[in-house]
Amino acid sequence: MAKTRGRVTLPSEAGFLKETKEIMERWGADALRDSDGTKLDEELKALDAKIYTTYFVARGHNEFARNHMEECQQLYLMSRRCTATGDTLDIYFMEGYYREQVIPDYTHDPGKWWEVMDRTTGRIVSADQWELDSERHRVRVASVPFHEYTVSFLVYAIWDPTQMYNHITNNWGDRPHEIPFDVRHSRSGSFARDYLVQWLRDNPDTDVVRFTTFFYHFTLVFNDQAKEKFVDWFGYGATVSVQALEEFEREYGYALRPEDLVDNGYYNSPFRIPTDHYLDYMDFIQRFVAKKARELVDLVHEAGKEAMMFLGDNWIGTEPYGKYFGDIGLDAVVGSVGGGVSLRLISEIPHVKYTEGRFLPYFFPDTFYEGNDPVPEARKDWITARRALMRKPVDRIGYGGYLSLAYQFPDFVSFIEQVTDEFREIYRNIRGVQPYCGLKVAVLNSWGKLRSWQAYMVAHELRYKQCYSYMGLMESLSGMAVDVTFLSFREIREKGIPEDIDVIINAGDAMTAWSGGEEWLDPVLVSRVRQWVYAGGGFLGVGEPTACLANGRFFQLADVLGVEKELGFTLSTDKYFTREEPEHFIRADLTGEGSSQSGFSFGESMKNIYACAADTEIIEYSDGEVHAAAHPYGKGCGVYFAGLPYSLANTRLLLRALYYAAGKQEMLARWYSENPACEVHAYPEAGKYAVLNNTSQPQETTVFMSEGRCQIHSLPAGGILWGSMEKCESPE
Amino acid sequence: MAKTRGRVTLPSEAGFLKETKEIMERWGADALRDSDGTKLDEELKALDAKIYTTYFVARGHNEFARNHMEECQQLYLMSRRCTATGDTLDIYFMEGYYREQVIPDYTHDPGKWWEVMDRTTGRIVSADQWELDSERHRVRVASVPFHEYTVSFLVYAIWDPTQMYNHITNNWGDRPHEIPFDVRHSRSGSFARDYLVQWLRDNPDTDVVRFTTFFYHFTLVFNDQAKEKFVDWFGYGATVSVQALEEFEREYGYALRPEDLVDNGYYNSPFRIPTDHYLDYMDFIQRFVAKKARELVDLVHEAGKEAMMFLGDNWIGTEPYGKYFGDIGLDAVVGSVGGGVSLRLISEIPHVKYTEGRFLPYFFPDTFYEGNDPVPEARKDWITARRALMRKPVDRIGYGGYLSLAYQFPDFVSFIEQVTDEFREIYRNIRGVQPYCGLKVAVLNSWGKLRSWQAYMVAHELRYKQCYSYMGLMESLSGMAVDVTFLSFREIREKGIPEDIDVIINAGDAMTAWSGGEEWLDPVLVSRVRQWVYAGGGFLGVGEPTACLANGRFFQLADVLGVEKELGFTLSTDKYFTREEPEHFIRADLTGEGSSQSGFSFGESMKNIYACAADTEIIEYSDGEVHAAAHPYGKGCGVYFAGLPYSLANTRLLLRALYYAAGKQEMLARWYSENPACEVHAYPEAGKYAVLNNTSQPQETTVFMSEGRCQIHSLPAGGILWGSMEKCESPE
Repeated sequence: MAKTRGRVTLPSEAGFLKETKEIMERWGADALRDSDGTKLDEELKALDAKIYTTYFVARGHNEFARNHMEECQQLYLMSRRCTATGDTLDIYFMEGYYREQVIPDYTHDPGKWWEVMDRTTGRIVSADQWELDSERHRVRVASVPFHEYTVSFLVYAIWDPTQMYNHITNNWGDRPHEIPFDVRHSRSGSFARDYLVQWLRDNPDTDVVRFTTFFYHFTLVFNDQAKEKFVDWFGYGATVSVQALEEFEREYGYALRPEDLVDNGYYNSPFRIPTDHYLDYMDFIQRFVAKKARELVDLVHEAGKEAMMFLGDNWIGTEPYGKYFGDIGLDAVVGSVGGGVSLRLISEIPHVKYTEGRFLPYFFPDTFYEGNDPVPEARKDWITARRALMRKPVDRIGYGGYLSLAYQFPDFVSFIEQVTDEFREIYRNIRGVQPYCGLKVAVLNSWGKLRSWQAYMVAHELRYKQCYSYMGLMESLSGMAVDVTFLSFREIREKGIPEDIDVIINAGDAMTAWSGGEEWLDPVLVSRVRQWVYAGGGFLGVGEPTACLANGRFFQLADVLGVEKELGFTLSTDKYFTREEPEHFIRADLTGEGSSQSGFSFGESMKNIYACAADTEIIEYSDGEVHAAAHPYGKGCGVYFAGLPYSLANTRLLLRALYYAAGKQEMLARWYSENPACEVHAYPEAGKYAVLNNTSQPQETTVFMSEGRCQIHSLPAGGILWGSMEKCESPE
Repeated sequence: MAKTRGRVTLPSEAGFLKETKEIMERWGADALRDSDGTKLDEELKALDAKIYTTYFVARGHNEFARNHMEECQQLYLMSRRCTATGDTLDIYFMEGYYREQVIPDYTHDPGKWWEVMDRTTGRIVSADQWELDSERHRVRVASVPFHEYTVSFLVYAIWDPTQMYNHITNNWGDRPHEIPFDVRHSRSGSFARDYLVQWLRDNPDTDVVRFTTFFYHFTLVFNDQAKEKFVDWFGYGATVSVQALEEFEREYGYALRPEDLVDNGYYNSPFRIPTDHYLDYMDFIQRFVAKKARELVDLVHEAGKEAMMFLGDNWIGTEPYGKYFGDIGLDAVVGSVGGGVSLRLISEIPHVKYTEGRFLPYFFPDTFYEGNDPVPEARKDWITARRALMRKPVDRIGYGGYLSLAYQFPDFVSFIEQVTDEFREIYRNIRGVQPYCGLKVAVLNSWGKLRSWQAYMVAHELRYKQCYSYMGLMESLSGMAVDVTFLSFREIREKGIPEDIDVIINAGDAMTAWSGGEEWLDPVLVSRVRQWVYAGGGFLGVGEPTACLANGRFFQLADVLGVEKELGFTLSTDKYFTREEPEHFIRADLTGEGSSQSGFSFGESMKNIYACAADTEIIEYSDGEVHAAAHPYGKGCGVYFAGLPYSLANTRLLLRALYYAAGKQEMLARWYSENPACEVHAYPEAGKYAVLNNTSQPQETTVFMSEGRCQIHSLPAGGILWGSMEKCESPE
């Protein structure tokens, strides 16, 4: 590969000039950035590179903040659940919280703004039935014996949780705790604006203001041991203030209750089916954030600089797939890339000039320590993310943290040198070109487009036992030659199903926002989906799709899927459909090398699934259960999997299942690799195609082109091979 | 063992005199019986034995039945679910049913007595929106496109399902199909009575009239292949008639709907939490059955004979633990014994002079065929059932089927010779004596006493994947030195928790009648249970105890149990309690020889359970989940298991858990075998104790007596050893 330059951002730090220049050269970097805890010095800023400067709007201004503690960010927190053993109950509501992070708000009348809940009845305890002792941080409740109670209370956040995390991780000792403030308040709002005006004057070398981020941090609460207690990357917990609640009530004509935000202690996790009140509140915050952020972005533009947003930290309300994101007027978004899903999450963002993926590992001592080799992690991440790049590339890649730390790992530096060149080659070949998509699939859940590529995520894509069997589906899709869109139940109800969709996917555990729970009791929704499948659509369910126990069904679309889950109520009914079809189209590429003898791997899988129709095609049956099945439904088809953790075998299984569900089996072998370890991406407009080896071993594969022609290719470990469509027989 | 005689019932058959005499001698039988398909001849009846004669009240009288087909037994059946694809939908409601078993009832106005349901909305389709074509067995519904519909329709049963099963199993060819009729109708009622009067006159040799059984067969419906389609040993399906429904309405002041019986196609399986309407209906039927059966029993007594009831077949409405069973006035009940649970189910029956267990295997060709050895099954059943016999013996044992078939298996005949002698020895030693019970435990579910020893049963104790992890708990209890009682949610609500209970057990899958589902949303119930545990009680949960998603909890008593199930909504909450306590009292006897390395075996187990309190004692933690835990709660304790399939190791685990939950650990080692392969049963009133070897290998064990003394015993495979309390050191 020829040495190229550009599209790469390097973190640097004061006093690291020589090495920075060397790495800039090797990685072809054309931009430099600081990080939380590092600064660029004048010499670095003078280099031939765009300068990104991290900018914190709502923290890192302690002089202001200390003088306006009443404008600190606020949260509603729920005390732990306490069981009354008599007719009074003392709840020490701050128990379990970290007092260096949050302090109760006694300024606003707790009798009005707090809520004591009887969690046994689900009812509010009226304010005259409890009293507050603010010295002891205690609520005394007139209780019914052996009912459980909680206190929902307002706090001020007095330490920004990301700075707190970095502070603790890097042992920053007595460096001041950065106090977060809320720009909704007039003085904070003015300060944020005025400070930026001055800052733009003071930072002429800055080309790109890297907002990290705007106003409201995702919910991140620590426990009394200063360890993480609750983390919701999507959470609106820290957007609350009395002022916001009052403005909301004026605008919407009804008041939110603390419970609308505390939500039983689930705090409206994205796994919860959102209530109408919470959706209203999100919309309310999003509009405010867009408007306020626009003011700052305008200032940046007036100063002749670019405005970039980091997708994280204080990103709440800026949802890039939300209705108001375009109004912010940003030039760019940068976000962290862990794999294909998070790459697509960034690369698909609309309304910006460019996107940037901050690749992992972050240059922090948790990875870069003596004795650890960061290369395997980086290689795995790259091969995984590359699949998604081939579908829709980010415009730039970059890294974060201490460059001086990464520099101590020469193999890592060399590896990234290869990566950056390969990235630029891909980008050069495919930018702005629509890749070939054999199908269009829609992922259906409660969130739809707003949470595009964000389904099943806990804390920005950590691996959870309860999620990986669904995340795998998304990861497979992120690099698959299909068009992927996101659909909410509400959209289907209001607008029907878009005509161009081939397959609808519904996947998740019962009663979550991903599966849909009670949404499926809506006759309009289920009839529309049935009708659409009957007319020829495909419906692919994973885990507990459409599940909600009612009207004699658990899977409300069991008639479409051909499978149902046994909850015990139909054990008295004999189940005779158990014959597996070993030659089924969907399983044709399984090699028997997976975790089970058959090659199937359903991850956490799902118990007690049975075929409920004679014409259900059982693709996998073991341990008295069905784990994969297909079922004809009119001209359409339902397909079921018990789980789809990410692997190349499961990616192929899913691809075949999607073509089968869509009734387009004969279209599968176009721009297609026979060997599931490889994938083909074609770009008809550019007259190019690429074959990827997604493994760390050499691979050989037969590639099927568009008109039934095929070719055998050999690829080195992790290799990528470019071909020209005009003369397919001779790859470049 | 000395040869003894009595307490054993032998099936025999015409023309098998010599061999019958031989086996009577060897097994010490003192009673002879016929079976379905066999008759005793005069020579047999003249032997020195009580003669049992099988008597069918409501079938086997085809001459009468054929002339009164309008008095056949009836059922409500539900058609399969049909999805409308347009605005009319044809439902061929008989599809999937066996027309030799059931025919639609067109006599009673279907517009009044049938019901078409929109299963998508859960609403009734009014009768003017559908029309019946009785020639085609078709209902045409004015439908909403892509809604699902069912027809609930009345049928006449024209073939008794047990005779049908025996008929098919034994190839009875053209033997007539026995037509079941309903004694609620005046002619059938009179016929049943008159026929018995004459029959008693005609059968002077009969000593015991073995009713098989009374009026209503449990629900057993066949499919169009003449295979079992639906079987509910507890089902009231075949108790229905228009007359019954009309009488019900007059008495209760409201009319039942077909849906009250069809219940979404679940047909009120005992896994369903019973509705008030269904409980009313059961009570209504039970009262009728008791009154009517009493009339027949009185006739038997007037004829100087005994009345015995077979617990099965047409037993619906006679529930032996129900309110009206005593009113029937029976002398005896005989039932099938598969293990300890079914033995206790029979042996605990109140209001009768004696009980009899019909042991397995049944002498039918499905077990007794060339090449099969029936002894291992019989031995396993005996060792399992013997544990329960030691707690509460049946008064007699017996067998059923073709003696001529069993006679061809001499090893089987020899084995039963041992069994019968051993049974008589046990009975002689312990009859009428209360065994030592270290604790009193209550099994809590929706059914309580009515379904004593019947929890988790599908089709009279078949092994189901979804049940064995709970049935194991019952099987362990059936032979354990604890007093076992059964409690319903309703009882706790109405009367509180009986004072003498040490531990309450709640076990089952979420939303079933065993676990309790929405019952746990009743504040009265949960407060009472909490208060009782707090005051010192033990609460043992298995599987998904107290589970119902509401008010921020899935396990409503998570505060008692110290564990909760992750449904996805609290993934954002960090979970730090994962440290296993390897030395915990409850796991002290585990040898590491179970299915897992640790010796634990949770059967189907339960996923995603986590400790939700810092003081939860985690007994087993693996795969990121808790599977066994204990948790202090006031002076009491909660204990959790993910599943408890039956094994000797799990029996010991449960025993220790019960003592721990009750806070009586120091009482465990009384009349106690150190080796979990053996058990000790003590009978203080009789001054005796017994040590059982529950395995097929020789065992050695240290037995702890009541005052801290202990002794080492060696037992042969499957052995039983009797000791005297006065001189514990010298076993008999």
